[in-house]
Amino acid sequence: MKLDHIDTPAALIDIARMQKNIARMQGRMNALGVAFRPHVKTTKCIDVVRAQIAAGARGITVSTLKEAEAFFAAGVNDILYAVSIVPAKLPRALALRRQGCDLKLAVDNPTAAAAVAAFGDQHGETFEVWIEVDTDGHRSGITPEQHTLLEVGRILHDNGVNVGGVMTHAGSSYELHTPQALAALAEQERAGCVRAAQRLRDAGIPCPAVSVGSTPTALAVGQLEGVTEVRAGVYVFFDLVMHNVGVCALEDIALSVLATVIGHQADKGWAILDAGWMAMSRDRGTSRQSHDFGYGQPCLLNGTPLAGYVVSGANQEHGILSLTSSSASGDEGGHADDIAQRFPIGMKLRILPNHACATGAQFPEYHAVSPEGNSVEWRRFQGW
Amino acid sequence: MKLDHIDTPAALIDIARMQKNIARMQGRMNALGVAFRPHVKTTKCIDVVRAQIAAGARGITVSTLKEAEAFFAAGVNDILYAVSIVPAKLPRALALRRQGCDLKLAVDNPTAAAAVAAFGDQHGETFEVWIEVDTDGHRSGITPEQHTLLEVGRILHDNGVNVGGVMTHAGSSYELHTPQALAALAEQERAGCVRAAQRLRDAGIPCPAVSVGSTPTALAVGQLEGVTEVRAGVYVFFDLVMHNVGVCALEDIALSVLATVIGHQADKGWAILDAGWMAMSRDRGTSRQSHDFGYGQPCLLNGTPLAGYVVSGANQEHGILSLTSSSASGDEGGHADDIAQRFPIGMKLRILPNHACATGAQFPEYHAVSPEGNSVEWRRFQGW
Repeated sequence: MKLDHIDTPAALIDIARMQKNIARMQGRMNALGVAFRPHVKTTKCIDVVRAQIAAGARGITVSTLKEAEAFFAAGVNDILYAVSIVPAKLPRALALRRQGCDLKLAVDNPTAAAAVAAFGDQHGETFEVWIEVDTDGHRSGITPEQHTLLEVGRILHDNGVNVGGVMTHAGSSYELHTPQALAALAEQERAGCVRAAQRLRDAGIPCPAVSVGSTPTALAVGQLEGVTEVRAGVYVFFDLVMHNVGVCALEDIALSVLATVIGHQADKGWAILDAGWMAMSRDRGTSRQSHDFGYGQPCLLNGTPLAGYVVSGANQEHGILSLTSSSASGDEGGHADDIAQRFPIGMKLRILPNHACATGAQFPEYHAVSPEGNSVEWRRFQGW
Repeated sequence: MKLDHIDTPAALIDIARMQKNIARMQGRMNALGVAFRPHVKTTKCIDVVRAQIAAGARGITVSTLKEAEAFFAAGVNDILYAVSIVPAKLPRALALRRQGCDLKLAVDNPTAAAAVAAFGDQHGETFEVWIEVDTDGHRSGITPEQHTLLEVGRILHDNGVNVGGVMTHAGSSYELHTPQALAALAEQERAGCVRAAQRLRDAGIPCPAVSVGSTPTALAVGQLEGVTEVRAGVYVFFDLVMHNVGVCALEDIALSVLATVIGHQADKGWAILDAGWMAMSRDRGTSRQSHDFGYGQPCLLNGTPLAGYVVSGANQEHGILSLTSSSASGDEGGHADDIAQRFPIGMKLRILPNHACATGAQFPEYHAVSPEGNSVEWRRFQGW
């Protein structure tokens, strides 16, 4: 289908940009000599993941058991569920293992470790568990020097659980914006995770995998000694937050929302779009960054960004397109009533999102667009 | 199913609270002598809408053609699509009319009005169109005194389109928080919409329906002379934004997210939940209000709010539960390491959301919970 015929709002994937992003990340990982395990929470789409695997990815990372179930059903076997498991979720994990899925669980506390061991013992299943390490104080995990690290390792190892490795995610990288700061955090992430693995091994606990990653640190890291694999998710599409972090150009962003101009408030300099926050998501991640993109960066249908314009406001099904405040007061501003002439009723635009993971989640399907402008539907799933 | 057995995160509807909210709104509308047309964009759920209709609602309001199609297929006939139509969407609107749906369209500009007239003429279909009126400068619509109002009315009326009425939505009511200010805006909304209808009628253009509404103005308005119907959506669930606006108690909020404690960072005073922004949505609507509820208000499983605690941060599948900053520094603070004892791994909580429309949209289904604690699944749909 041609872009002109797609009902709006719609989520578009620029296939050429996506393939370029995949090749860039996989090429870096190949050069660094580590395996790459993409995080599929960004897309929840088997077509995208097939492209990542075709480029060389080994296994996937998931953030929900539904992702694990859906991707296993689609033929992916090596799956890391990278959120600390709780007892009530073990039956679903067991069911996947019993079907032959090479599912690896994660824990970051003794209670969860003991629960996995007891449940495995009860059901005669040898679970594989990775221990989550905290290398930047950002969220969850055990810090490398904490006593709890060895305690958790022992609970698992001494009770018949296969300790598969350690994993960390330096999510605070999203708050940085210089190559130097990113490289320093990437080294901190690497060193902390390798140190945790070493402590486990020194205590006689096996720790084959050492898994690190976030999109910014994966693209900034200089060397990965001691690391066996990297995980990253949003790189496959990139977004405006990643642009502000400094790891992609606007022209690399592969996800956009196709929208139509449905009205104007000329005296306010507004064009009204049929893409509100239900389409863009409520993510305002760029509001804390150097460049606030509002609810998104408008572009022409061919992908060219409309400099000086922004989606400045959003209701559920209405977006407000206007000049940025600096453009409105500056020379490039023009007259307010130009808005209706420049953006007539029915005109279609593409809006780059703040956060690809959040925007994609608003849609039941993507329209994947070829360089020739033809599109096919790629389903994505929702829920847990 | 009992609450204990529902996989987390999950969206719960407290049926008793929902029915109380429905009865409250419908009772007000009955007392004011107007019809009530609920906005179903909040729930996108036929089970909820059946309860609204059973209580006396006449017709529904939708924000997308997909809602119109889904609710018409489920047996609802009288549907107002309250977003200004664009030419590319007319074929889907025509298909609904041809199937017997009493679909009413909305326009707020001459281009759209002319497009509907021309398309109707071309296909031999008499569309019904309502003119959107702007009574508070909040978003779209034509102000009551604008010349464009009569221009649009004439384009429609003179070209065989059935002008069904005028409609307005004082969405700026969400920014208020006193009964006086809400009542004043409600009167402004009423008077502006009635004035627009009068101007059309004075010009010889029929205008049977005069439709106003938003949840806060509908609950604050003193009299509705000249108005034929009211529309409101979020009242059916309410949420923390509405609580801050002052139109509901915490105990009225019928939507919550069931979550499980999956870890701790005791030194930071954090319990980690498996409800992050993918479950709560990225909506931070209370951040601009008198009480900032972070990503949500945690409650016990029985619905009792946990005073002094808040979901203070969120990643995609991780929420951070902590003391509010005022509680952490005050007497009720307690010790940071109490967090793991008070909220042990596996404990389930219910989180009240900032914005019910945004949070509901993150889930493919609700779990509707009876006063006895049993739940049934109510599907909701996604997309456009």
